[in-house]
Order: sequence, then C-alpha cells, then structure tokens
Amino acid sequence: MRIVLAQLNYHIGNFSGNLEAMKNAIAKAKSLKGDIICFSELSTCGYPAVDFLEFRDFIHRSMNVVNELAKESYGIGIAVGSPTVNSDPAGKDLFNSAFFLSEGKVIHIANKGLLPNYDIFDEYRYFEPAKEFHTFEFLGKRIAITICEDLWNVDNINPLYDLCPMDQMIQEKPDLMLNLSASPFSFEHTQDRLNTIRNNALRYKIPIFYCNCYGAQTDIVFDGGSLVVAADGSIYDEMPYFEECIRSYTLSKILPNGINTEQKKEKENLIYRALVLGIKDYFHKMKFKSAILGLSGGIDSALTAVLAADALGPENVVGLIMPSQYSSEGSVEDAKALAKNLGIRYEMLEIKEVFNSYEKLLNPWFQNLPSNVTEENIQARIRGMLLMAFSNKFNHILLNTTNKSEMAVGYGTMYGDLCGGLAVLADVYKTEVYKLAAYVNREKIRIPANSIEKPPSAELRPGQKDSDSLPEYSILDPILYQYIEKRKGPNELIEQGYNEELVLRILKMVNKAEFKRYQSPPVIRVSYKAFGSGRRLPIEGNYLY
Amino acid sequence: MRIVLAQLNYHIGNFSGNLEAMKNAIAKAKSLKGDIICFSELSTCGYPAVDFLEFRDFIHRSMNVVNELAKESYGIGIAVGSPTVNSDPAGKDLFNSAFFLSEGKVIHIANKGLLPNYDIFDEYRYFEPAKEFHTFEFLGKRIAITICEDLWNVDNINPLYDLCPMDQMIQEKPDLMLNLSASPFSFEHTQDRLNTIRNNALRYKIPIFYCNCYGAQTDIVFDGGSLVVAADGSIYDEMPYFEECIRSYTLSKILPNGINTEQKKEKENLIYRALVLGIKDYFHKMKFKSAILGLSGGIDSALTAVLAADALGPENVVGLIMPSQYSSEGSVEDAKALAKNLGIRYEMLEIKEVFNSYEKLLNPWFQNLPSNVTEENIQARIRGMLLMAFSNKFNHILLNTTNKSEMAVGYGTMYGDLCGGLAVLADVYKTEVYKLAAYVNREKIRIPANSIEKPPSAELRPGQKDSDSLPEYSILDPILYQYIEKRKGPNELIEQGYNEELVLRILKMVNKAEFKRYQSPPVIRVSYKAFGSGRRLPIEGNYLY
Repeated sequence: MRIVLAQLNYHIGNFSGNLEAMKNAIAKAKSLKGDIICFSELSTCGYPAVDFLEFRDFIHRSMNVVNELAKESYGIGIAVGSPTVNSDPAGKDLFNSAFFLSEGKVIHIANKGLLPNYDIFDEYRYFEPAKEFHTFEFLGKRIAITICEDLWNVDNINPLYDLCPMDQMIQEKPDLMLNLSASPFSFEHTQDRLNTIRNNALRYKIPIFYCNCYGAQTDIVFDGGSLVVAADGSIYDEMPYFEECIRSYTLSKILPNGINTEQKKEKENLIYRALVLGIKDYFHKMKFKSAILGLSGGIDSALTAVLAADALGPENVVGLIMPSQYSSEGSVEDAKALAKNLGIRYEMLEIKEVFNSYEKLLNPWFQNLPSNVTEENIQARIRGMLLMAFSNKFNHILLNTTNKSEMAVGYGTMYGDLCGGLAVLADVYKTEVYKLAAYVNREKIRIPANSIEKPPSAELRPGQKDSDSLPEYSILDPILYQYIEKRKGPNELIEQGYNEELVLRILKMVNKAEFKRYQSPPVIRVSYKAFGSGRRLPIEGNYLY
Repeated sequence: MRIVLAQLNYHIGNFSGNLEAMKNAIAKAKSLKGDIICFSELSTCGYPAVDFLEFRDFIHRSMNVVNELAKESYGIGIAVGSPTVNSDPAGKDLFNSAFFLSEGKVIHIANKGLLPNYDIFDEYRYFEPAKEFHTFEFLGKRIAITICEDLWNVDNINPLYDLCPMDQMIQEKPDLMLNLSASPFSFEHTQDRLNTIRNNALRYKIPIFYCNCYGAQTDIVFDGGSLVVAADGSIYDEMPYFEECIRSYTLSKILPNGINTEQKKEKENLIYRALVLGIKDYFHKMKFKSAILGLSGGIDSALTAVLAADALGPENVVGLIMPSQYSSEGSVEDAKALAKNLGIRYEMLEIKEVFNSYEKLLNPWFQNLPSNVTEENIQARIRGMLLMAFSNKFNHILLNTTNKSEMAVGYGTMYGDLCGGLAVLADVYKTEVYKLAAYVNREKIRIPANSIEKPPSAELRPGQKDSDSLPEYSILDPILYQYIEKRKGPNELIEQGYNEELVLRILKMVNKAEFKRYQSPPVIRVSYKAFGSGRRLPIEGNYLY
C-alpha cells in the first residue's frame, strides 16, 4: 500500500481554490501510484474559518468540495477534512470531521474528539466533541483516522481532556493511523509536535502518517513539517517546513529501527521563514502585490524591509524616509544604505513643514503649554499618514515595524507608528530582533552595521533614547517573556530574583497598554503567546495598575 | 427569612474596590435585617476577566476577597462568586464557583455546570464544567445555588448542553433557588432573560432570587434587572436597569398568584441608557474625566455628543468643528447649534492649510494623478490627528462616532474618523440612530432638526452623499441585520426576497471591511451581535468576495 501525504496551502473560504489544489494533488498522487492520499484538517474551507462556520451556506459549500472530491476517488482513497452538521439537536451544531472517500462514496467519517479551546483556538465555540471512535478497513488494512488535537492527550500529567480517541481505536487493532492536522507554527511547537507524534507511535505501536498544512492566514502561520513515523517512534520522514510537499510512502517500508531522519531546527531560521511566509501569504491571499514601509534607519524597520524584500521581491517594496528636525544625519544615511543593499525603491519626504502647519493651527490652544508627548505623537502620526497616502494612491499595503517589546509596554503611537495592515515583528522581542538581524546578515551585510549598533531611539525629541523611558531591552525582555509567555505573576517574578519595583513597573506598563494593542494591526505569530486572538485581556481591567 | 439581592457594579481586577462595594452592601443588608445577601457571578474579580484568569496570582487575589467576606458573615449568609482552582489534574484548571459563607466559614460551594462559549463568551477557555449539583441547608431552609447559564437549558428544543443542573438539585427538594449572574445587555436579551427565569420557576415550582450585576466593562454592558420570581412564575420584583439596587425580600411573601410587577421595556430607552452607562463607566474605570469628539454637523456626531454630555456632564465634553473647503455652511452652523443646545464647549479648526501642506509635500509623486479616495482619507486623517492632539494635550478621551451601518460596510477611514478610545454608536444601525435622535429630542430639541433631516454625507468632496456609494440605509440596514445578527447567507437572503445583486454587493462589502474593523475601537454592545469579541471573522477569508 502506498500512502501520499499532501502538505498544501489552503485559503479560508476559497472553496474553488482549495478544491483545485486538492484535485491537482490527487492527480499527482495517482501518477505516484498512491492508494491513499491524505490532506489536512478542515482542508475544504481552510483553518481557522472562525465565525464563517456559523453560516449554513459556508458549511454547505464545504460539503460541496467533499462531494466534488468523491468524484476523484476512483482508484484512490482520499482523506479530507471538513466541518459537518451534527444531526443530534443536542450539543453544538457542527462536528470537525474527516471523510474517507473511495470509488465515489464516503466510506468512513471520523469526528474530532479533543477540541482545543485555548490560546488562538476556539473550537468548542463551534464543534461538538465526538465521544466514540472507530477504525475502518481499506484494501485489506485497518485504518485509524485522528484529527490534530486527538493525539495530544498522550503521556500528559495534567490532561486537559478526559478521553483519548486512540485508546478506543487501538482495541480494533489498526495497521496504521492517519492524522489530519492544522497545527500552527511557534518556534517551540515544532519540536513538541514531533515528540508528541513519536510518543503516540511508541504508545500504540503502529506507523503514523501525520499530515499538516502550511501557509499563513493573516496572523497564524502553519508550518507543515508533516511526519511519517514508524511503530517504534523513529522518524521515517519529516517533510520540509513552510512549503508545499507531496510525497508517497510505501507502508511496508515504514519499519522499526529505520534511519531517524529528524531535521535540525534552528530558531532564527524558523522564525525568519515563518515571517517571510506570513508576509507573502498575506499579500497573495489579499490580492495585493506591493508593500510600503517607513525606513527610520533603525534596526526594526531595516529587518522588516529585508523580510518584505525576501517575501515579495525587492521590486515590490517601497521605503519612505521621513526625517524631522530630530532625525540624526546618520539615520537617513543608514536608511538609504539599507535600500541600496536590498535593491528597493525609496522616497524621501521631510515632515517639518507639515509639522509646522499643525503647530500653527494648534497654536491658539497649545501656545502656553510645554511641548510634550503630544508633539512627539504628531510627528509619528504625520509619518503614518504619509505612508497611508502612498498606500492608498499606489495600492501598497503598509507593513508595521513595531517589535514585541515596544508593543508590550505601549512604546508606540496609535495611528502613528502603530499603523499598518500587518505587524511583521510584533511577536519578536527586541533582543531577538538583533539575532534575526545577524541571521539575515550572515552571508553578506544587508542591514547596515550602524542600524544594528547604535542605541535604539524614536528620534522624536533632541537626543531621545529608548532607555530614557524603558529599561534596557536585555533586562526588559526576560521579564516580558515570563509575564506574557509564561503567565508568571508579580510574586513569582520577584521570587525568580527580579527587582520588585522594576517588575511592578513593567507589568503595569503592559497592562495599561492594552487599549493600544486593541487597535493594532494583526501580528504574525511566531511564539506560543502572541498579541492578538491568542491573548485576550480587558482594556479597563484594573489589575496590577 | 429575609433575602437581600445586591445589584452592584464591579470592576475587573479591582479587588479592593469590589470588596469594599460588597462590604458596604453587607452592612446595608444587616441594617435591613437580612438573613442572606446574594451577589452576582465572579463578583470578586469582575466579569469578564478573560486571560487574567490564567494567572495564579489573580485567582489568589480573588480568593482573598472571599476570605475577607467570610469575616463579614457573622449573622448573615453571603453568596458570592469567584474563580477557584480545580484540584483534579484532569480538565481545565479552574471552576466558575459560588461560595456560601456563614459565621466565618464556607458552608457550601457550587460550581457552574453550563459554560457559555459563544458570541462574547469564552468560559470553556478557562473553566471545567461541573457535572454534579447539590443543595444545602441554611436556617432551616434548603437552598439551591445556580450560576447564570445553569438556568438556560430549560424548555429548549435545540439544547446546547446535555445536562441541566436544577434537574439534579430539585430531587433534594429545595425551598428556594439563588442564581448569581453576569448577564450582559442586548435589547432583545432583557425580555428573554425574564422569560427564562420565569420558565425555571414554573418548571421547578420554587421561588427564584436572581441577582445580576450592572455596569460596563469597555464594550460589554451589564444591565442589572435582577428578579424575584414566585413559584408560579409571577414576577414579584424586577429591579431597575443600569443602576445599583440593594433590596430585601421576605421569603414567606413570595407567593403564587401575587401581583406581576414586570416592567415595560422600550427599545430606544434601553439602548440610550446602555450607551450612557457604557460611556460613563469607561471613563470612570479608566480614571478619565473628559471626552472630545469631532462635530461634523451630522446626526451621528450629534447623537454621540448628547450621550457623552448625559454621561459625563456637558462641562466634560469638548467638540472640535473642523471644516474643510467641502464642508457646507450649514454643517458648521448645525454643529454650533448642537454645542449650544447641550452646553458643551467647542473649538473650531479649519483644516485647509494643513491639507495644503500635505498636498505640497506629496506633489512630486501625486501631481499627475487624479484626486481620489487618497485625498478624502487625508482630510479624515487630519481631523483624527487634531482630535488626538487635543486628547493627548488635555487628557481627553476621543469618542468615535461611527454607526454600525458604516462600520459594517467599511464606510470610514482607518486612522481618520475610525479613531477613538471607544466607539459609542458602532452597534447602532443608521436607521436606529434616527430613532435614538428622536428619543433624545422627545422633550426638547437637543439635536438640531437640520442634522436629522439633511441627507447623510461625509463631505469629503463636492456634493458627496453617502448614497453615492451605498444603498439607502432603509434598504441596507435590514440586509445587514439579517447577515450580521441572524447569520443568514446569500441564498437565504435572496429567498427572503432581497435583490440578488444587492445582497452579493453588500455581503462582499461587509466581508472585505474586516481589516478595518480589526483595528477599530471597542464598540459598546447593545445588540446580540456586535462588532468586537463576539464576532470573529478572518481578515483574509475569501468568502463571498
């Protein structure tokens, strides 16, 4: 028996596009003499379809894709994921299902039992969990189908769920397992996932064919890395990350004691590729071609420009250099050098005159008051507005260049430097931005050394440095990480040895900035706790204020 | 036995404030010779605390409030809601609990069984559902405690849940039921809630004391309206809406065949009060005093100004009138007349010169291109920026004046008229804005007749009318309502008799505007499907495009 895994890029709600991609993969699988082709979770409609799932029309169109695929199933079994209607009036209206199609018919339906409902996941909002799980026979082999999270309740000392689908199915002595997943990237998750699949193989002692999708859906990036694991947990194949892959495997060759082909995973490489794919798919799926961004001469905008150039081609990236009277000469030169290094177009706009026209207009009210953050914000907002004007006039998408440290403490101007269609770096701490800059500079200098080496500054008043209002990033970032990713509260942080006053100051800054993050652009998620749908906090919550 | 219901306003994470409010209510209950005082769901920490619940420190502080309240429980039984730790390692980490305290001790704990996980609710993200439910005895009476949703699986032909907590507890023959709720307002929900409580009384044939909170938490408004219902479903008392209320009831007087005291509910009155409370609490809880908004002379900004003046006092509202060359003379006069009617301060700023400075700066790139939406957006953004400059300099919060029809179809400029800390009208369709305008004008003219009667226009180009780009609101709004609130898809709408081309055009506009709503301010929720956390849709979902 030959099994083909198809690691494809789906688009939410684009039923015809998803159908076409799967039909093409089926044709390829047939040419590879595959007996089975396996797609990923909810591949008919894309993942996460969120509240589109509440529309009967949407479910109907998803099922139409299943019906169309059934017509392709002569001579090949097809495993495909789709939402389906729960015919029992009790419980949620839908199941998260996998169909097995053969010779024009549905020969098996598996419904997902373990529904993730944490971080970015809201599956219990839509789906009823299945409670019974069965295998089926195909071409003389007994097959167990599981869906993503169904495998994640193994060897867990703090189980989220009170059942384990494979514990039921293993009673029926399956010869192999197919798992259809939509498992998003975070740099820690890639290895966790591999370990989990391996642990399942070890527990159930059967080969596992694990099919993940790849591709970005605005903020969430699916990384692929589909797996074929032998019954002893050795990795028979690990598909590439962040790209399409269709491969055929002969079941009888997936044997214990095989060569372990596990890939090395390097953090900066993974994050770099996730961000590039995040930009690329956003533009592709939104049908936009070119990006614009402000180039300040600093490291964040420089790194964002590199990622955009690599995702879209340098010919599709435009940088605006918008100095004010507070910009250093070096900043403009660094920005120009970057544009030259990357081969992207840049335009230069001095914001002084527009700033003066605002000052003049506001003078009757502001004249006797000291200059403060108001005037700094005006500068940042003029830049945001000029970028949006170019974006509107020339059909560019504005990329936001804020990093996670700034986004966390609210070091940014709403409607100013917090503008943008997509926030590229807002899940990357400043200290990690430096590492990514080194990574993209590893073969040749792309980001000018000066952008990397000079002290970070917003350049909104004379001699300003980030460190005037913030702790050094090397001190700030570890505390942010413990608070945001690790959910550690003030006492736990102080017990870890962090300075009490500093901890309370930082946590207060983070909590008070919630109102800014509420209106920020979607953030490409690369950690396991990104700003956005996976982190939900009240704007007016008076906690740690 | 005398039972006191305390309908209070809680603040998320403000443990000392919540404790103090409850202690004051206990003192009052003791003065009323109450035997029991009942607070509402999760009253220690406020609702919805969302991901703050993932911090052990937060749960610990909530439990401290319970412990402090226990010290007040000599001579009075106290029912209070708090998150608690689930000691079973399996399942979610927390329960949504109600404590009954007496003589310094916890004498009963009830855990919530039915966890809403739809619309704005995410309870299954945090809480394990209870599966067993028991009553307890206090002062010779057997008491059943339920928490909010626990009562909502009665007489339901499409039950979301497969259990019903009171069906278990009724076996123990309770004399009465206490329900602790945090049930948010929507104008349909108020009557549904009363009917549901009544149906519970009829089903279980015992009196019900239903205690809701009131107060706004940014976007979500709790309306109070706590209830005492006799065993035959007659309404013994219905507390006022949108205000604090502490009342004592003698159990032996809550008899069948009593006078039904159900209040009349008038839609515009309810929505008006919800919006006023929404503004008031946002400012109060964020510790801001004064509001600013742009006054265009149109009906949306006029109605927002009325609501702000009623919430904060006219002395705490400032309007900016910011005409351009496209503003009609009438618009400025209408805006001034409104400010005079309300007694609010206004300032006038002509945006022409700033606009010219942008045109001059952009001229090298834009000179040979036709003027288009780019220039319209620049005007809207200059206004947004001036409002933010005043907001920053004078510590005002900017109120957004966009209505739900505009927000739905994306008729608004990001970082322009979509700016603001709070969107006051973005859950009110334009046709309903007219009804609310009539409501606030019912006793005397506050919104000038001209603002109500003239055709809606953004006044961003000569002679512009909303109807140039949108269907008439009387046609648009019913389709939006069916799509947004009723979740009807294109075929269902066409079957209802709506024009196919129009339906597809409108649905496409709504879906394509998701990227704008993602970055919009929080919206005060008054319908059962508002933009915000209760409606989650993908930005790049290619559905009905």
